[in-house]
Amino acid sequence: MNMSMSNRYDIAIVGTGPAGLSAAINAKIRNKNIILFGTRNLSNKVMKAPKVNNYLGLPKVTGEELKDTFLSHIDDMNIKITEERINNIYAMGKYFNLMANDKVYEASTVILATGVEFRAPLKGELEYLGRGVGYCATCDAPLYRGKKVTVIGYNKESIEETNFISEIVSEVNFVPMIKGDLNLKDNINIIKSRPISIEGDRKVKKLVLDDGEIDTDGVFLLKDSIAPGQLVPGLEMEDQYIKVNRKMETNIKGLYAAGDIIGKPYQYIKSAGEGQVAALNAVSYLDELKNK
Amino acid sequence: MNMSMSNRYDIAIVGTGPAGLSAAINAKIRNKNIILFGTRNLSNKVMKAPKVNNYLGLPKVTGEELKDTFLSHIDDMNIKITEERINNIYAMGKYFNLMANDKVYEASTVILATGVEFRAPLKGELEYLGRGVGYCATCDAPLYRGKKVTVIGYNKESIEETNFISEIVSEVNFVPMIKGDLNLKDNINIIKSRPISIEGDRKVKKLVLDDGEIDTDGVFLLKDSIAPGQLVPGLEMEDQYIKVNRKMETNIKGLYAAGDIIGKPYQYIKSAGEGQVAALNAVSYLDELKNK
Repeated sequence: MNMSMSNRYDIAIVGTGPAGLSAAINAKIRNKNIILFGTRNLSNKVMKAPKVNNYLGLPKVTGEELKDTFLSHIDDMNIKITEERINNIYAMGKYFNLMANDKVYEASTVILATGVEFRAPLKGELEYLGRGVGYCATCDAPLYRGKKVTVIGYNKESIEETNFISEIVSEVNFVPMIKGDLNLKDNINIIKSRPISIEGDRKVKKLVLDDGEIDTDGVFLLKDSIAPGQLVPGLEMEDQYIKVNRKMETNIKGLYAAGDIIGKPYQYIKSAGEGQVAALNAVSYLDELKNK
Repeated sequence: MNMSMSNRYDIAIVGTGPAGLSAAINAKIRNKNIILFGTRNLSNKVMKAPKVNNYLGLPKVTGEELKDTFLSHIDDMNIKITEERINNIYAMGKYFNLMANDKVYEASTVILATGVEFRAPLKGELEYLGRGVGYCATCDAPLYRGKKVTVIGYNKESIEETNFISEIVSEVNFVPMIKGDLNLKDNINIIKSRPISIEGDRKVKKLVLDDGEIDTDGVFLLKDSIAPGQLVPGLEMEDQYIKVNRKMETNIKGLYAAGDIIGKPYQYIKSAGEGQVAALNAVSYLDELKNK
């Protein structure tokens, strides 16, 4: 792994839905050195909304229009989106290490705004996490040299990642959960079945499908967001949400969360408000750190 | 008092800042029968903002533009503003009575979004509340028949209210805290001094000014918003804010609060998000009530 010990950011924001973007504009206005991780598609949930009328000040917009409005706001403020997926975040005491596929970013504070996935985990997914189940194929590929892995691909980026891993391991199956062209290398087996469960004993042995099963040493589920408890070791949850107080502080000092990831209702302006609160409290915390 | 026992509203929203307006549009979308109390000026704080750049989706707007954008959103949804000041709210069990100057409104749920006042109370103000100090001159005027009252006027509406009370009591002093024309009746004494404290024994006896004092049986402080603890008897506070949980529920069933009134940061989109959360939870509560 290429450890790029560059400058330390004041605030790293993970997620480009309304919570992450609102956090970014508020932190930027306060002159903080920020980095914003996500995609310029912003959020699938925003983009796919047919009609939104409950975002005060923007009546009768489509999800697509809302996306464009948000993008023009951050462009106007010269806020860049770093299109990298953060796979792990480690609290190091006075700062955080954010692990992307082949880089490490450092930040004094972190705001998590990665949203929620509505997909329930596969049977066996959480049970075998770290024992054959993983969410970052490029990170863990070296562990499977000479072995057989199966990738369940929930997004377009999973194709590229699967091509990469096929150069390292001995056999790769790809189970597409997306439509459209699969631009996969010839040595990858495409399996168009529905995954049901992951089974094994101490470690993963097979993936059970709706029309059969395949033997495999590892299963990678490649999707846009990672369960927060998996993303940040030691993060306190409440039901399936990150536990925060009214300041959007988590149980880890310097780590904030906002948006769907902290609970219902799943709504744009609720998320934007929380992103703002998280950013302003992160700014106060940074000012405290500086004055110590 | 004219008790108009009209229809009961599903949700009464008190306040027309971003929290109240966001609550209103969200409740209206859910087909609730709402009433929104406030002014079409919306909020002095919004109107006076020189430049706002941290409301995601509306870059570089002035407070005045933000006001117009908000108004056009609620106009577009056919949401009316009822320009009455609510002086007291009483929890009646399964509904609330909202007392305006000469009317009573009924609602199954209430969302408080009246904002905060940055003015600290006068010395003696809270001590003598209900014992000579009041916030609604027209409500309490009959108690001062044949007596001497002093009005401290913090807004334009206080002028009209003072003219009205002068017809009932024997002597009225008016201490203007506003600029501009004071269109007061001839029998009202205008006192252009700064009020310092309210003094008395069991009841109010005098108002102390920076350049003297005046004997008075009552002191009315007429301003846009009333301290929430005074507005709703039994409402639990935390420091000077209304105590709410993540659902924006107060300690009184069916009563919600949102915006500056529940705490810092004092910011538009934070308030709008909270107004939305309050409204959606009030809607859930109403649906529960109906299914019982």
